Formats: sequence, C-alpha cells, structure tokens
Amino acid sequence: MNQHAILHIPDSRYCFACGEKEVILRLRMAKEDEEANVSLIYACKYDFASKRRQEKMKICYRDRLYHYYEIRLQLEDVRLAYIFQIEEKGKLYFYSEDGITKDYCFEEGFYNFFQMPYINRNDVMDVVEWMRSAVFYQIFVDRFYQGDCEKDTGYITMQWGDVPTPKNFAGGDIKGIIQKLDYIKGLGVNAIYLTPIFESISNHKYDISNYKKVDPQFGTMGDVKELVSKAHEKGIRIVLDAVFNHCSMNMAEFQDVLEKGRESAYYNWFIIDGAFPQPEKMNYECFAACSYMPKFNTADRGVQDFLIDIALYWIREADIDGWRLDVSDEVSHEFWRRFRREVKAEKKNCVIIGENWHDAYPYLMGDQYDSIMNYSFTKACLDYFAREKFSAKEMAEKLNGNLMRNTEQVNFMMLNLLDSHDTHRFFSEVSRNKDKLLAALSLEIIFPGAPCIYYGTEICMEGGYDPDSRRCFDWDEAGWDESVMKTLKELTGLRSDEVLQYGNVYIGEEDEMLLVERSWQKRKITLRINLSKKEKEISLSEGTKALVSHLYENKLHDNGFLLTEYDET
Amino acid sequence: MNQHAILHIPDSRYCFACGEKEVILRLRMAKEDEEANVSLIYACKYDFASKRRQEKMKICYRDRLYHYYEIRLQLEDVRLAYIFQIEEKGKLYFYSEDGITKDYCFEEGFYNFFQMPYINRNDVMDVVEWMRSAVFYQIFVDRFYQGDCEKDTGYITMQWGDVPTPKNFAGGDIKGIIQKLDYIKGLGVNAIYLTPIFESISNHKYDISNYKKVDPQFGTMGDVKELVSKAHEKGIRIVLDAVFNHCSMNMAEFQDVLEKGRESAYYNWFIIDGAFPQPEKMNYECFAACSYMPKFNTADRGVQDFLIDIALYWIREADIDGWRLDVSDEVSHEFWRRFRREVKAEKKNCVIIGENWHDAYPYLMGDQYDSIMNYSFTKACLDYFAREKFSAKEMAEKLNGNLMRNTEQVNFMMLNLLDSHDTHRFFSEVSRNKDKLLAALSLEIIFPGAPCIYYGTEICMEGGYDPDSRRCFDWDEAGWDESVMKTLKELTGLRSDEVLQYGNVYIGEEDEMLLVERSWQKRKITLRINLSKKEKEISLSEGTKALVSHLYENKLHDNGFLLTEYDET
Repeated sequence: MNQHAILHIPDSRYCFACGEKEVILRLRMAKEDEEANVSLIYACKYDFASKRRQEKMKICYRDRLYHYYEIRLQLEDVRLAYIFQIEEKGKLYFYSEDGITKDYCFEEGFYNFFQMPYINRNDVMDVVEWMRSAVFYQIFVDRFYQGDCEKDTGYITMQWGDVPTPKNFAGGDIKGIIQKLDYIKGLGVNAIYLTPIFESISNHKYDISNYKKVDPQFGTMGDVKELVSKAHEKGIRIVLDAVFNHCSMNMAEFQDVLEKGRESAYYNWFIIDGAFPQPEKMNYECFAACSYMPKFNTADRGVQDFLIDIALYWIREADIDGWRLDVSDEVSHEFWRRFRREVKAEKKNCVIIGENWHDAYPYLMGDQYDSIMNYSFTKACLDYFAREKFSAKEMAEKLNGNLMRNTEQVNFMMLNLLDSHDTHRFFSEVSRNKDKLLAALSLEIIFPGAPCIYYGTEICMEGGYDPDSRRCFDWDEAGWDESVMKTLKELTGLRSDEVLQYGNVYIGEEDEMLLVERSWQKRKITLRINLSKKEKEISLSEGTKALVSHLYENKLHDNGFLLTEYDET
Repeated sequence: MNQHAILHIPDSRYCFACGEKEVILRLRMAKEDEEANVSLIYACKYDFASKRRQEKMKICYRDRLYHYYEIRLQLEDVRLAYIFQIEEKGKLYFYSEDGITKDYCFEEGFYNFFQMPYINRNDVMDVVEWMRSAVFYQIFVDRFYQGDCEKDTGYITMQWGDVPTPKNFAGGDIKGIIQKLDYIKGLGVNAIYLTPIFESISNHKYDISNYKKVDPQFGTMGDVKELVSKAHEKGIRIVLDAVFNHCSMNMAEFQDVLEKGRESAYYNWFIIDGAFPQPEKMNYECFAACSYMPKFNTADRGVQDFLIDIALYWIREADIDGWRLDVSDEVSHEFWRRFRREVKAEKKNCVIIGENWHDAYPYLMGDQYDSIMNYSFTKACLDYFAREKFSAKEMAEKLNGNLMRNTEQVNFMMLNLLDSHDTHRFFSEVSRNKDKLLAALSLEIIFPGAPCIYYGTEICMEGGYDPDSRRCFDWDEAGWDESVMKTLKELTGLRSDEVLQYGNVYIGEEDEMLLVERSWQKRKITLRINLSKKEKEISLSEGTKALVSHLYENKLHDNGFLLTEYDET
C-alpha cells in the first residue's frame, strides 16, 4: 500500500457539510491500491469510545495518480468523529490524524480522530439555486449589437465587422442587448454575463473612472434597469463585471492623489512608494504593468466602503443577479469576505464568480465567492479537443481532478467555459471543426456547473487572442450554420433536467471514448465523445434513448458525440 | 520517485506570506526520495514566460513518511508565480498545478503555475509579539489560593487540601492570585491563563450565568482590574477563558426561553426542537450531553452581538491581554471571524487561543484565532515520556509533523502544554519521575511557541483525571522540591533569549537521543534528551557551553536532558 498517497483533510474539500445534517467525506488513495477495502468508522464525537458505526466507502473519482473515495452521511448528531479503516491484502490499517497505524486506541480518540466538530448552520455553504439550471451567455458589449441609433456615435472608430484593434470602438450597447433578448433566450440561455459597462475610456472598460455611471457609449442607468427588468420577465438573470482590483487613473480619487499626494484624502486608497504617484516612474502598485490602472489598497477601510457601496448600489438600483470579479485573485481575502457578507445580506441569491484561473479553493470555502470562471476546464478542453494532447482516459482523469478541487456545492456553481474575451476563440482553436465544437459544448452542458457560452459561439465566430477574440457579432443570418445553432439549442434545453441540476457524476473512458454520466434518482444522462480517429459502434441498451444524436446506424463518427437518456422507472 | 507523495497547496500552510514582501514555500516529498535535487522556479506572475529565477530548496522538516522542503523568499514584486523542479536519478520533472510532468510549457504557465497572486497587507497574519517570549501559567482559580478572608465563605465545602470531588469548593479567588503574583513572577512566568471567573454555580465555572459579573466566590470587577493592573506592572499578561459555545441554563436569557418558549426574544439564541426547551427531554443543542449547558446559536446575529460585546467589555474594562476560547471547534467559523475582527480592532495584541484538540488549521489561517492549546504536543509528550511508545526518532518525527500543520507565525504563538485541568497531571503520567518532568519541561521551553505550565507543576503536584487534576495548591514549602523549581526557573529564563523567540528549528535524533536545535543569527541553543535507558557520553565542541546541565563528567544519565549554547561570534 502506498501510504504516502493517502490524504484526508478535515474541515476542507475532503470533509464538508452540504446541509444542516449532511456531510460529504472524501479519502484519496493511490490508484495502485484499488483492491483495498475502505470503510469509515464514525460516531458522535462524545460517543466515539462506545457507540460507533462503520460504512463501506466507494471510489467515485479517478484522476491520473489517485482514487477518491466518497461517502455522504445523514447525521442525527452533528458532532462527528471518524477515522478510516483500510483492509489491504489481509492486513488492517487505521487512518487518523496520526496517519496510518496498525492499531488504534478508540478510548483516546479525542486526541487524534478526525472530526467535523459541529455543523453550524452559518458555516454551511448554500448553492445559489438558479445556478443549477443556468446557461450563461457572455457578451463583450461594444461588439454585440448597436441598439441605440440616436446616441452620439462620434466615438465609433470602426465599421461593424472590421478587424478589431486594441483601441477601436464598434458601437455595441445595452439597448442592443435589450433588442436581442429574444434571440438570446431562443438559444436556451437564461443568464447573461456582461463585461464592464461603467464609465471608461477604453472599449473593454476594465479601467473604470466612475463606477456608478453607465458609460454613455453603452447607455444609461435607465437602459440597465430596462435590460434587467426585461431579462427577468424572460427568465434571464444579469451578472455584471466588478473591476475592484484596480481602477482607471482617470478616476477622480486617483486624480486627487496625483494632484495632492500625501495630502489627499485618498492617498491610502492606493499603494504608493513616495509622496506622489508618478505614472512615468510606476512608483505605485497597478494591474500588470499598466500605470493607467492603479491598484486599489483593499486593506484600507475607505476603499472597502467605496467598493462595497458600489456592489450594493447596482443590486439595489438595477436588481442585478450577480457579480463577476475581475482579477479577483489579486484582491485581499479580507475584502472578499466583507464583500460576500454584505452582498449576500442584500440579495441572498446574488451569485459571486471570481476570475481565478487557478485552483481557487482558498476563495471557495464558503466565506468568499460562490464560484470561479473554470479556466482549468477550458485548458483541459483545449488539450483534449484542440491539441489532442490527451486520450479519452487522460481527459477523464483531468476532469475528475478538476472536480476534486472543490466541494459539491461549488462544483454545482462553477462557470464552465470554452473561451472568453481573454482567450482565443475555441472554434478557432479546434481549427473550425464544427463537430469538435459541438462535442465540447455537449461536455460543457453535462459537466457539473453552469456552462458559459461566449457570444457568437453559436454562429461559429472565429478569433485569435485579444483583440481578435472580440470581433463584432455577425448578424447576417445568411452566414449562420443553422445545424450548429440547432444542436446548441438542444443541448441548452437539457439544463432544465433535474439530472443535470442535482445528479451525481461519473467520468471515465469506454472503448477509447470519453464517457460522462450524470445520474439522479432512477434516471441517467450519458455523454460519449469519440475523438479516437475511428468510427465507433455503439449499441444502446434497452430503455436507453438517444437525446442528441450523432449516431448513424449505430456508428459514432470521429469527433462526434452522443447524448443518451436512460430511465429505470 | 514516489509521485503520489508530492504535495504543495498554494495559499495555505504550504505557501504563505509572513511579511509584506516575504513568503515561505513548502514542498512535501516521500522520505525515500531524499536524493532528489529540488528547486523552485519563480518570477513575477506577469513575467513568468520570460524572466524567471531558480533557487535550490533544502529539507527542513522530517516526519514519519515525508520530507518537507522549505524556502523563504524576499520579493520585490509581490505577485508570485512558481513551479518546482525535481531532478531525480538524472531525470528532470516539473511540479505545477497540473501535477508532475516531464515537460512544462512556461508560455502557457498562466493556466497552471502555482501562485501567490498578490500579498495584500490585510491578509498577512501578524505574530502577537509578546507571545514570542511568553511563559504561561494556568490557574484553576478555586484551587490556587484564597486571598480574601473576609468574603462570605459559606459556599466552601472542602478543607484546603482535601481530595477534590466534581462539585466541592475550596475557596481560591482573584485576591489570592494577586497576593501570589510575586511568587508567580519568580517562576519566570509572564502570562497567566485563568479558567473562567464569571458568575456560575460550579467550581470550574464553565457554565456561566452572567458574563459581565465576576463570580462573588472569586471576587469583584475591582479585583480583576487590580489583578490585571498589578500583573502588568510586573510584566505579566492576563488571559481569560471565553466560554462562548454554551452558557448555563441559569442564564436569564435561557430562563426567559424556558418560560416563554417561541415567544421569547431569545428563542433563536439557542437551537431548540420544539416550542419550548425541555431539559428532561434534551430537545435542544447543548454541550456534550449536559442539558444544563445549552449551546448558543452563533448563527444568530443577536447572540453574536451579545458575545462580542462581552469580549470587548473585558478588554475595555479590565485591559486583559487575551482570550482562551472554550470548546472553540464547535463554534462557527463565521462567528470567530467576526470575533477576531472586533477584538483585534479593540486591542491589536490581544491574543486569541482556541481550545482545539485537533489539527486546527482551518481556524488558524489568519482570519480566526492566533493559536490553539497544542494538545497534539501534549499527546506526543505522553507517548514519548510517559508511555515510552516512541523512540527519539519517532518523537522527532511526531514533533516535525506537528510543526508542519501550521504557518510559521502560528507556530510561534502555539500554547504548548504538558497538562491542564482537562487531562491527568503530567507528573503523575510519568509516575512521579522528576527527571522526566524536567526533560519534558525543557522540551516545552525550546519548542516553537509559548510554554504553558499548569499551576503546581513546579512543586510536583500529582493528579489523575478531572476532578483529581484540580487539587488545591500545596503552599507548605516544606514539601517542595527546590531542585525542580530551580531548574524550572532556569528554563523559563531562557525564553528571553532571541534564539527561542525568532530562531529556526531543527528536530531530529542523535545517538538515540532527541535533539532539538534553535538557531538565530550566529547563536544556537540545543537540547538533548536521553530516554535511551543508557548513560550517554557527550563531548561538547569548542565554543559550546552547558546552559542547564544534567551532565556529570560528560555523561548524560537516562531520563536526563542537556541544554547547551553555541555562539559563533
């Protein structure tokens, strides 16, 4: 047995409450020890010496090196003490806080059992319920649709459809989105994430000079209210982009510091090395190496008050449904904790989605965000579909590993994406292979969490890195591939199915195909993706019907996918 | 190479800031891979593709299964990206967020490097500076000394020195402690932790009925103020016991609920299954199985306000220096977060010490407590000194493992104890072996963190489990062992040495003896403990002098210890 591989961490993603009396426990072991019999020995912590129960654990996830056993307990007493028992090749081991031992003294367990000391209701992370069935559509506002023809268009510097440059403007706006709400709804989308809409001199508006003012290029507060209200009528939620790591150097408060230096009331809002910020010397903290984007000092109470007020303002004024947090990993944990407290107190089902490209577990423990943009999922999809670096088995392992980063609640709220304004377009990455695009979308739909479709994916828009990934939406329907759009709608339609909203997940490999199963009560939805370079013969068992079918005479072609449904009832 | 053993978790005890521009990184590997060359490849995260540095890492800690490499970096840019490079048997591996790989694509590192995205000042945990040199003395008030002879003594139910029962009273009080401050100071103690002193019908007072009133048996608010003020004059800090998990059923608010049920304004202060709490049915949450100690519902804002007010009240009124938190692991994280924010805002160097018997890392990440009562250290000392279950090597491994549970800052604030009112007395556990007691005390003194001496240890008090561990202090000096007290004073005197306050630690085994070294700048303090059942010959190298010596003609007897000092300057 590979003792070194065994891992369990109490009060973590390896042991967490998912309800007032419900807890999930995970144990990691080396793959090579698959034959071991693993069980959980548990009791109320005050009865551990006397009244214990024992339950067998099953392997639920498998990544490259490890198996993850998982068990879900319904507790009567929410003070849980436990250890693991591992039987391997006729030998018995115990795994406690003291590691692997051949004996275990239950009478002195209070020194070294694992424990969930007490499930306090305020420590249980809730799923934002609407996220279970959410299908997101991300819009880069300047490039989606111009709805306001009466606005001052003097700022527009490109023809709609021209090749984008970092600094040109195409004219898209909020009114344009309002006018296209039916189109968006028609895609099966029920949530929109907008890149920033507040006053800023750039087309992307990630350098904001006034957080309470909609940029006139995009519209007015009235337009935002109308957008949210009309979207809500259609069952669509609106998530805005909170750029709270940094602002624009044009923001009045930073200008005040530029002018008055240490004498400014806002000097401590920024992190400045010297009496005055000097942009040419970059003597203050900023985003990346952009002196025009000074970083906020979120350790400062005044900055916190300012930013929290903005977060609450847009919830109160416009009734938005969530915040996506820009460069959120560079902002302090302490700030995000306060942000969550105050945002959730204002609107409990307001979703909080960080822009963390990495394992963001320290932000996803229940006291900060609900979710992140799942760029690790993006990278896996690139390596599997586009670069073909992964076999189906390797892809399955990668996806299992991704799920093991977080609690079940967080996994149900993950924002899974193939691309965004910060990456190449996925359709270009797969060399414009429509089958691959659809197969990847099918994976995005069935994978736990909410899929996020970057605007234009449905019409097979192309594009390389920024600014090329931010092209104008081509509204000329003549060029649209109706079959891609039709299949996408079939896929998004599945999100209303409870199986995808609540179901357990199994991800593995079968006959060189990626196999993803979601099961809930007596039903099961299964996805097979075939990137094996071979046509695969598939025979569906009785009671199984094809949901979204790329199956011809029981054959699944290369790059094809098959979604099936099985109902035991 | 045992890939399965390799572990690093960013933004955790494996990677944490210990200063505004200083970070400590740890990497865990299997012991069997000791020959590997491990180095850190790092850069500002925005320059990771172009401007990287590489630095070799060293093994600093060793437990039973693993080696822990550690490196301390002084950063210019506090946005750190890094991966590990492992060279083993001529082969090169990289360890990133994607696990162990043979290749690594630095250009796409933004998807999978490890990172410390930004060191925000408000996320850096500070050491409460006075804890570096603290020597604690724990007093169970009823049994220490009766100083007030004029109080109503009708409650006293035992003669001083009688065998304690769970419910009898001996008469110890605050005035008694005030009168013995010089005695306490004489032991080299500079911090006192008192078990609860607030109104309660029990002798231990862990069931409190009025948190703002000193129990009349123990004294008055005036006595507490006098105690703190006189202690401060002598350089002694005072830490009180915060029993915030539960209260006494006699507390007015619970009585109100007993009377009015759901109609009571305090109904939600508790967790009740039904309209009324019914003690005989135990239909409400309580501590352990004690219906007379109803548990607070710390998810309730009113309860939070009530308890926080108490915490701040005693800081403001009596200027206390810290809170020890009773049954703190059963109280919600959310509550402790608010507790820390408000307590630290009131008095920044007020120490917060949880009563968590287990790995308490989830509470020690900087947002909740500073420290815990280190019962894992206690257990190791029992297994090594008393039960002789561990060899010196195994003890070293156990202590290394203990240190790897937490960040450096937390380790410097740990409350290390051999015993308390909740355990058997250590002197009884080692069968009244004075050499073993002193050897264990020497370990407690040199181990990172603050030693906590249970009252009476210095006079070799004995006792089994509660209530026997709570005997009356025997003030008859005729029975004291002066040599134990003298050695204890020599040991506590060492805590003023910077080496113990700031020094690095090495714990290992040498010639069957436990070897602990603390080193700082050019000085080193070394402890050797010999439980080998053999006399050990020790020759001190030049420049090394014996500090606290049990050495006779270069021989260290069984159960003896030797503390030495080496100064390179």
